Amino acid sequence: MCDACVIDEVKRSMLSRRGLLGLGAAAGAAAVMPAGAALAQTQTAAPAATREVRGTALADLTHTLDPEFPTFSGQQQFFMDQRYRVEKDGYNLFDLRIDEHTGTHMDAPLHFSPDGLSVDQLPVADLMAPLAIVDIRAKAAESADAQVTPDDIKAWVSANGELPERCVVAMNSGWAAHVGTPKFRNADASGTMHFPGFHPDVAAMLLEGSAVGIAVDSLSLDFGISADFATHMAWLSAGRWGLECCAGLDALPASGATIILGAPKHRGGTGGPARVFALV
Amino acid sequence: MCDACVIDEVKRSMLSRRGLLGLGAAAGAAAVMPAGAALAQTQTAAPAATREVRGTALADLTHTLDPEFPTFSGQQQFFMDQRYRVEKDGYNLFDLRIDEHTGTHMDAPLHFSPDGLSVDQLPVADLMAPLAIVDIRAKAAESADAQVTPDDIKAWVSANGELPERCVVAMNSGWAAHVGTPKFRNADASGTMHFPGFHPDVAAMLLEGSAVGIAVDSLSLDFGISADFATHMAWLSAGRWGLECCAGLDALPASGATIILGAPKHRGGTGGPARVFALV
Repeated sequence: MCDACVIDEVKRSMLSRRGLLGLGAAAGAAAVMPAGAALAQTQTAAPAATREVRGTALADLTHTLDPEFPTFSGQQQFFMDQRYRVEKDGYNLFDLRIDEHTGTHMDAPLHFSPDGLSVDQLPVADLMAPLAIVDIRAKAAESADAQVTPDDIKAWVSANGELPERCVVAMNSGWAAHVGTPKFRNADASGTMHFPGFHPDVAAMLLEGSAVGIAVDSLSLDFGISADFATHMAWLSAGRWGLECCAGLDALPASGATIILGAPKHRGGTGGPARVFALV
Repeated sequence: MCDACVIDEVKRSMLSRRGLLGLGAAAGAAAVMPAGAALAQTQTAAPAATREVRGTALADLTHTLDPEFPTFSGQQQFFMDQRYRVEKDGYNLFDLRIDEHTGTHMDAPLHFSPDGLSVDQLPVADLMAPLAIVDIRAKAAESADAQVTPDDIKAWVSANGELPERCVVAMNSGWAAHVGTPKFRNADASGTMHFPGFHPDVAAMLLEGSAVGIAVDSLSLDFGISADFATHMAWLSAGRWGLECCAGLDALPASGATIILGAPKHRGGTGGPARVFALV
């Protein structure tokens, strides 16, 4: 599929989905509304049920971001310009320039959906959730074009019980270990990238349930050779969020951790670098 | 004090403090090191003692950031440029430009200290901490030049017991409510700002203990009329962190909440916008 065809297909698909979104419900979302902030408009139905979380430490699921961080586009997407220096000016300060979709970062529904929630509108209750980690490292080591499939979800359920209510489902493909190498993008001679992602059938399957987000340790919710962003389209257009370039999943249990998503909060943003922790 | 004199004083003070920092100790900091990230160099001594935290909800302590967000400089410090539009391009995406010290944001030790930790080097264990909120709303309503003084800390201790080990001490001056108004900067005819902050004597007092961070609901750790950034200097140069423009403190108890600081993680950064929560 040529690039232009892909874009057209994406647009057609998006328009056809707009009728399915069930827009219009607005509700106070944050547990505590910051003074001066506009009340978030939400598309989600009920707030999360109250559930006690416990832990003794934070695990860091965030890669360090620098100008060399690999990107989906292949172009540099993060720039730092030191405007003040302590030796000369008394303090250090940088101006930053960044494409929202760089580093360990969020995809808000608005990224692929004309009427979707922006990153500042995501309900705070959806930024802390039970974390279900689906380990596909073995098959991803055999083929970089591996995907999380419905069978992988079923295997997780067989081993760990039903997915928790309003959970986050994360793919651990082992790709975080490649972040400092060309293997992270893994582009072939034609420029097509090869890295793992979620199969669109899993997005459809999880949309039947209450999962609030999906996370990948690779550059995209869709696997690298995807020609149509089908997982992005299905998932984000349904008002749920995504996390890309997640780090640190190897050290966590398949079930039992709580993810805490320090999403950016710029008004109208389509996503952005996030500080992501797991409470363990 | 003229501007140039202030800068000179800041530089002199900084140089004189360099001998006091006890630099050189490096230790693995994060509970889980993200693959591909450099090992953080830390100036702090021991990691936090293991302590169980519990909660049922996240309170959001983060203001929504937009281009009109008030700044210390008085100049616009955040810019959004929509590079892709869903109707035309198939997806929405913004390029962002931002001064690190904008919105609800961190000050890393490197902001005022030539050898201080950058924001990506802060130990993850120091980003989750018991939150002690010092309420000076009454005196800040009487005078915008109010400060948190040692007596305010003593009053907190009298009411709530000793400050918890490795806590964060936050000033609630009521200033978060002014964020959408000129009162947030509260500049007089000469341009001098009037808003509350931490008295340098409190920084000195807390440096005797183990507090990891201080937080303010105003634009600066120092009160607006400060001529020498004395609190910044003392606190950050000692390797501890600050949080400015904190929101949402009114709804929290003086003691008992756990702050979770979604600090940015760009390599070598002096601070930056953070997503801040309290687990309650």
